Amino acid sequence: MIPRNCWYVAAMAHELLPGALFPRTLLDTPVLLFRRQDGSAAAIEDRCSHRRVALHLGRLVGDRVQCGYHGLEFDGSGACVRIPNQERIPPKACVRAFPLVERDGFLWIWMGDKALADASLVPDYAEICSNPAYVGRRSDALHVAAPYTYNLENVMDLSHVSYAHRQTVGTPLVAETRPETRIDGDTVVVRRAWDRIAAPPVFRRLFGWDEVKRTQTIHFWPGANIRLDITSEPVGNTDPAQVRRIRVVGPCTPQTRGSHFKFSTMYRDFGQDDEATTQQLADAFLVTLNEDKVLMEDQWRNACTDGPDAPMFDIAVDQAPLATRRILARLAQAEAQ
Amino acid sequence: MIPRNCWYVAAMAHELLPGALFPRTLLDTPVLLFRRQDGSAAAIEDRCSHRRVALHLGRLVGDRVQCGYHGLEFDGSGACVRIPNQERIPPKACVRAFPLVERDGFLWIWMGDKALADASLVPDYAEICSNPAYVGRRSDALHVAAPYTYNLENVMDLSHVSYAHRQTVGTPLVAETRPETRIDGDTVVVRRAWDRIAAPPVFRRLFGWDEVKRTQTIHFWPGANIRLDITSEPVGNTDPAQVRRIRVVGPCTPQTRGSHFKFSTMYRDFGQDDEATTQQLADAFLVTLNEDKVLMEDQWRNACTDGPDAPMFDIAVDQAPLATRRILARLAQAEAQ
Amino acid sequence: MIPRNCWYVAAMAHELLPGALFPRTLLDTPVLLFRRQDGSAAAIEDRCSHRRVALHLGRLVGDRVQCGYHGLEFDGSGACVRIPNQERIPPKACVRAFPLVERDGFLWIWMGDKALADASLVPDYAEICSNPAYVGRRSDALHVAAPYTYNLENVMDLSHVSYAHRQTVGTPLVAETRPETRIDGDTVVVRRAWDRIAAPPVFRRLFGWDEVKRTQTIHFWPGANIRLDITSEPVGNTDPAQVRRIRVVGPCTPQTRGSHFKFSTMYRDFGQDDEATTQQLADAFLVTLNEDKVLMEDQWRNACTDGPDAPMFDIAVDQAPLATRRILARLAQAEAQ
Repeated sequence: MIPRNCWYVAAMAHELLPGALFPRTLLDTPVLLFRRQDGSAAAIEDRCSHRRVALHLGRLVGDRVQCGYHGLEFDGSGACVRIPNQERIPPKACVRAFPLVERDGFLWIWMGDKALADASLVPDYAEICSNPAYVGRRSDALHVAAPYTYNLENVMDLSHVSYAHRQTVGTPLVAETRPETRIDGDTVVVRRAWDRIAAPPVFRRLFGWDEVKRTQTIHFWPGANIRLDITSEPVGNTDPAQVRRIRVVGPCTPQTRGSHFKFSTMYRDFGQDDEATTQQLADAFLVTLNEDKVLMEDQWRNACTDGPDAPMFDIAVDQAPLATRRILARLAQAEAQ
Repeated sequence: MIPRNCWYVAAMAHELLPGALFPRTLLDTPVLLFRRQDGSAAAIEDRCSHRRVALHLGRLVGDRVQCGYHGLEFDGSGACVRIPNQERIPPKACVRAFPLVERDGFLWIWMGDKALADASLVPDYAEICSNPAYVGRRSDALHVAAPYTYNLENVMDLSHVSYAHRQTVGTPLVAETRPETRIDGDTVVVRRAWDRIAAPPVFRRLFGWDEVKRTQTIHFWPGANIRLDITSEPVGNTDPAQVRRIRVVGPCTPQTRGSHFKFSTMYRDFGQDDEATTQQLADAFLVTLNEDKVLMEDQWRNACTDGPDAPMFDIAVDQAPLATRRILARLAQAEAQ
Repeated sequence: MIPRNCWYVAAMAHELLPGALFPRTLLDTPVLLFRRQDGSAAAIEDRCSHRRVALHLGRLVGDRVQCGYHGLEFDGSGACVRIPNQERIPPKACVRAFPLVERDGFLWIWMGDKALADASLVPDYAEICSNPAYVGRRSDALHVAAPYTYNLENVMDLSHVSYAHRQTVGTPLVAETRPETRIDGDTVVVRRAWDRIAAPPVFRRLFGWDEVKRTQTIHFWPGANIRLDITSEPVGNTDPAQVRRIRVVGPCTPQTRGSHFKFSTMYRDFGQDDEATTQQLADAFLVTLNEDKVLMEDQWRNACTDGPDAPMFDIAVDQAPLATRRILARLAQAEAQ
């Protein structure tokens, strides 16, 4: 039940080096990414049409992928353009190709009905990713052995930072504060704000702050897009110039029914050239990503072991996670009809 | 077909450190063991009732287990005593708890019908484990990837020491001696005795003995209790003070249908303060435990590969193992009705 | 669908050391190989008839295999010749035995109907393996996690050397040359010949040759026999003494439905005592074997993941591979009736 008619992140743009054959399974489909000689990126099925050997075991010859077994060649449109020792190339020699758009440092792929692939619908993170006011250290994909919905539920309920991320970004009051949740069509926005709250441990270490004025706003929109905006400022501050902003750009992409890739980068508008700040925040961010990974993978392993009838129940903070899941279920159902 | 209305060993008491969350799957159920601040041990299901994350990923806060994901708290009775940011705690927020008794260095757990859990039925090893006449180096649990019945069959037919344990405790004559087997209700006792038999290699090395007068008695009783009593003395000896006793306390517990934990400790009434003796016997004992583990795991792997219809046949020494299996089948069947 | 009424290679003769118990699964059956004291080899089922423990965990006592668990003993005919502490040995105590013939450095086994096991049908590689004109460094079995038919298809279409083995034995023109294919009953012969062709990289490195006159002939016959004959000589040569011959003896044996052992040895009639030549050719040969292993295992992994309905199509060079598969299917079907 995964909507396919959406743009998903296939890879961070910097993951796809010129000359490389880059394989990645997305939405249960083996995909091969590569760049043509002009730098443009292409995505085709990572299976030779002949004997289904992975094309990433072959090599890039100009703008063509040559199968490493019997030498068949394919271009970025999936067309088979050469079969050694054979004139006629039958139509079934072609492999699937997937619309691909490079924007904001992401390679966006369309795995659904090609006729519906509209580049104007590519999720827009330009205001953060292509904005010189913000700096961020681009991460690679993080693999998580749990459904991508677990990640969305994780992020849409940030009460968990009080328990899972006590060492880095969590403080007890977060979980104690009921968030304001707004569901508007296919988007969900969750917001918490405090005039005075204990500073997260990482801020305490960086700035020596004990308490801060703080807001925390999370946006979800389909396919699997997450944006997290955090403001911090001295208690009682009224000067906009003193507000420090952290913005997390966090789309994820299903790999299989039970695993996903998470593409999370933290941006900030302060201390841009300060390497110590960059390093401390990057380290803290990596710790939180891995703390979530451990929890989500345990949750999925237990779901697989215990079966679908094992009891669970919902709590108050599940409002936004449940809304997110309902949106995805509605989209998937609409596609199935 | 595993009887559940029995006391099984959940862990050696020394395995459960104060402050720790100790997870172990028993009878196909994930169990979490922990000690309250007064030292008493508790056992609850190792799954949060909310999203089924393992509770051992959380932490112990006083006498409560706090889930590491969303902060729900549970006490040793399985009651959910706190949900962050929520007043009402619904009954389904509770998790299962299991009766637990600490005795003789074991933590005994009852995984069946709670109404039948009678502490007076806890298997009694006090005469050995809590007897200053005997000394033993408490082992940790040994994990074996084979059904627990394989272990019971292994121990109930000690003819195998002549082949599997030739380097440590086995001599050829053991297998050649038909044992006396007594089946009495739910207990099975197997006995062999020799006025003169080659000393086991480990005794030869320890005492320089060539031959000994010897007895070997194994007791089985449900759930999965084993006691092995061995006497050794000089050939022709009539002085009780010269008899050296080894007693193995060896209960085991099913982990899953195809795996178990073995809690085997060897006690002796001689050379109590002699570290060299302790070490040599402990080493030899560990070797035999691992020799058995290899054989049992191979047997189970083959059973899984070859399927239930693969032929087997019984031999004379299988009398006690078969009796043991029949007792367990009868108990399991009685529970199923 | 694997024909069983054929002789297959159970092991290279040199793999089976005197005194050893050598286990190997062949055609989905666990087999134990061992040598009697007179050096003759025997093959019995690698399962004790009592509790199905693998017999290779026991030991060889004279010409008998003693089970490592309860001491039952079996001879090379599969007969149970001893049960400790028991007079009567029931007929079902026996284990299966398999006809075995040692010839040309191979141990040939018959896994099918014993009544049809005719030693005169053992595949004959004597002209190469037992011919002093040729020298070869006997390889051990190479395990490949793919069906044995993948290996036969690999070898029966050598166009793949142009792509898979570009660093060692492949040159582009091989794939561009349509082979002559002859199907005669149950045998398939594929031949390519060139008056002038770029020398394979390994020949270029060994002899400094740029171009050669060359032939390449592959023979297949059931069960799973492969012989590859290659001649190389200076362009325009007419002197038979200048022809250099390489002959690959390459039978393989199914381990399971999805894996096989490959027994490939390369022989040559030149530079017999030159260690550098031996080493360079052996290294190049090992590289090609592993390149093929990677491709075949990927192909099989994909077949398992993508399922039997995933599309494939045949190309011109598949003529010989398809003929080979048809022969095996016909033989397997005939056996099934």
